[in-house]
Amino acid sequence: MLAAARDAFAERGFEGASIRGIATAAGVDPALVHHYFGTKDQLFLAAVQAPADPEELLPEVLAGGPEELGRNLLGMFLRVWDGPARAGGLALVRSAVGSEWTAKLLREFLVARVLRRVVGTLGYSPAERDARGALVGSQLIGLVMTRYVLKLEPIASASRESLVEAYAPTLQRYLTGDVVLPG
Amino acid sequence: MLAAARDAFAERGFEGASIRGIATAAGVDPALVHHYFGTKDQLFLAAVQAPADPEELLPEVLAGGPEELGRNLLGMFLRVWDGPARAGGLALVRSAVGSEWTAKLLREFLVARVLRRVVGTLGYSPAERDARGALVGSQLIGLVMTRYVLKLEPIASASRESLVEAYAPTLQRYLTGDVVLPG
Repeated sequence: MLAAARDAFAERGFEGASIRGIATAAGVDPALVHHYFGTKDQLFLAAVQAPADPEELLPEVLAGGPEELGRNLLGMFLRVWDGPARAGGLALVRSAVGSEWTAKLLREFLVARVLRRVVGTLGYSPAERDARGALVGSQLIGLVMTRYVLKLEPIASASRESLVEAYAPTLQRYLTGDVVLPG
Repeated sequence: MLAAARDAFAERGFEGASIRGIATAAGVDPALVHHYFGTKDQLFLAAVQAPADPEELLPEVLAGGPEELGRNLLGMFLRVWDGPARAGGLALVRSAVGSEWTAKLLREFLVARVLRRVVGTLGYSPAERDARGALVGSQLIGLVMTRYVLKLEPIASASRESLVEAYAPTLQRYLTGDVVLPG
């Protein structure tokens, strides 16, 4: 079932894939998929082996309003990555870098589960939402690569507080500032 | 000789490694290393399998002065990555993500050959130079991951010009702007 789910999410994306289609591909009843994995959201998290559920963390990130979004997103992101979820997150990034197929899953995860939900609260058109979301994603994945993979100093051993201060203006500009959208 | 060079650069960094030490480790005469690889710079590029020599591209990046540095660095960076060097660059990133040892070499390459030379022109203390360089590096590696590895839209297929416009203010702030240094 998980293999069928990974294929479906990688091929059709989070929105396009259905529990019914995944069950058919796996040769089982949809009720069995629901029984083992719960909702489509939960099945997706299991399929990408996500070490944390952004959904649970989102209310706290959004609580400060649009002008605090960059700072709050960074604070949450670094707290998760500095915690026990890091090993799973790094495994996902490593796998995505080596495989087109896991890259698709990680992209779906970032887009459907993180960026759309964060940027989606700001009332942009879909095109602007996706462009701003991708800019935010590019700085966050760059921070992960620098701090946890390449371990480039002083970022590798910097305090979370100083990283939030350094990066918050960048994220805030990508989220709500004056920016030429890539296209 | 290349294996000995990789060990030396990964262990002692670009500054700390010497042609003499590498020759001794490889059991050959230093003159032979010079004969095959030229200078320490050239040996380093061969050891990390760098697909482009930043040294050759730097004068053009610096020509516009400090206030154009972010824009010119981005333009050069994207031109190189959109060209034939991309395959080699991606191979280096993939390898670095899977291996601590290649990660050290890539870090040395970024620090010693790219960031220090670019940020080194701005007259900061070594600590500030390294911090600003690491911030710049984190956005550049994030752009590589987003555009070429994860292929996140609209960044994956965006024009170079629009990406330069979108990212130049970020890089310029990290280089010469008001920024809380990570530490």
